[in-house]
Amino acid sequence: LLVTVDQVIDGVHVTASTTNWADIGTKAVHRSVSDIAAMAGRPVASVISVALPIDATREQFDALRVALGEAAAQCHAPLVGGDIAVHASSSTAGPLSISVTVLGVPSEGGAVLRSGGCVGDAVWVTGELGRTLDVDGQGHHLHFAPRVDVALALHDLLGTRLHAMMDISDGLGRDGARLAEASNCTMQVTADALPCRGTATWQQAIVDGEDYELLFACDPSEALPAALCNVSLTHIGTLTAVDARGAMLVRCTNGEVCCGDDLGWDHTT
Amino acid sequence: LLVTVDQVIDGVHVTASTTNWADIGTKAVHRSVSDIAAMAGRPVASVISVALPIDATREQFDALRVALGEAAAQCHAPLVGGDIAVHASSSTAGPLSISVTVLGVPSEGGAVLRSGGCVGDAVWVTGELGRTLDVDGQGHHLHFAPRVDVALALHDLLGTRLHAMMDISDGLGRDGARLAEASNCTMQVTADALPCRGTATWQQAIVDGEDYELLFACDPSEALPAALCNVSLTHIGTLTAVDARGAMLVRCTNGEVCCGDDLGWDHTT
Repeated sequence: LLVTVDQVIDGVHVTASTTNWADIGTKAVHRSVSDIAAMAGRPVASVISVALPIDATREQFDALRVALGEAAAQCHAPLVGGDIAVHASSSTAGPLSISVTVLGVPSEGGAVLRSGGCVGDAVWVTGELGRTLDVDGQGHHLHFAPRVDVALALHDLLGTRLHAMMDISDGLGRDGARLAEASNCTMQVTADALPCRGTATWQQAIVDGEDYELLFACDPSEALPAALCNVSLTHIGTLTAVDARGAMLVRCTNGEVCCGDDLGWDHTT
Repeated sequence: LLVTVDQVIDGVHVTASTTNWADIGTKAVHRSVSDIAAMAGRPVASVISVALPIDATREQFDALRVALGEAAAQCHAPLVGGDIAVHASSSTAGPLSISVTVLGVPSEGGAVLRSGGCVGDAVWVTGELGRTLDVDGQGHHLHFAPRVDVALALHDLLGTRLHAMMDISDGLGRDGARLAEASNCTMQVTADALPCRGTATWQQAIVDGEDYELLFACDPSEALPAALCNVSLTHIGTLTAVDARGAMLVRCTNGEVCCGDDLGWDHTT
């Protein structure tokens, strides 16, 4: 059994005052479902807790509630329980907070972890990266589709040759370094190879968080199709032996190599 | 598989400014474990999300983190995942919030639900009720032990004659009405029979929330011991056919019968 929990908090992950609460609910569910996808798992159920601000309207709550239920059902992770609280009307009155736990079952052969990468592996990503907050990108951070189907298809296609996988939530730089470190490798990617969303620069593709795309390492002899389940697949680099320069190295368009370890969303600031 | 989620929020369930954060963490875990106990389930794992106020200290966070892990381990529900976020330093800066999901496995024969009560069943509670916030009661709401062992022992002892069970978190009045309504019965209890904590009155035993004791209905022919696993068992009443006066009726010490349905913690106020 797989289990994951993730939060969406007003002021941190969304701006509740200017966002449709249905979109917030959908995002909250999809964030956690994305964690199950990242392990090539199949979501089966979810439980959700919600803390409402004291001034939430009935309409906002209803929109949120319906969206949470619908998104969970659409992801085959039906909502089987939950808890709702209203923040106290005191000096500690608080923001909308949603915590979504999703249960899943691993694919045959077990969950795909971020730690299974090997020196020489090819590194790939699904979809496009960067500019995830842009409205002209239709607010990708609110409207992304968790990559469950693609992950299962990759697992079917590659089997044990799919060595390591994770979803990119804090940016390719930071998350790539995590996969590399967990696999005791360095990840080297080429800026020119990155699939940039719309007008995103390669720097944005590395730094911006909330892509919720899959980052995976597999046997380099695999010839993957350009797309699976209508989602593009892009070969962006390689896992190498640990390089003293960093866990995540980017060959820039000018040929320089820079360290991408710290490029991405920092939870601590 | 059983799964439950519950929250502890500063200003609603605890007062973080005047409470040891280790106690808050322990309470958060025990609240959700109590939900598993209420179904005669055995906890097996937990995942926890925490939203920290922007001014939380390292010491507070460490105390909380350690307590969450230790409480979960002691309840045989080891912490297998989690998420930590810090509230934004904006006008929506928020209070400490903890959401604990606990997974459990049901006892042989399946989970005990609140809906299985039958007309004629004897109604029992574990432990003592009321004055759960009192410091002279050593802050029961912070220091209670979830009744996992007692619930499993009751299930072993009674088998299918344990018809319905729940934990009392919103007060006997309100939660008793819930069990009765789910079982399509009325619950009738005797004020004089209630096991009151310390100096609690029978009214407090009915109204105060956060007892986290077990309320259960079983075959009336059962002669239960005075205690199981060092926890007292008290026969407090009976399930009857639905009575128009209410789902929860209390025979007061003066012989009058009053409706206890609405006596207890109201989440909506």
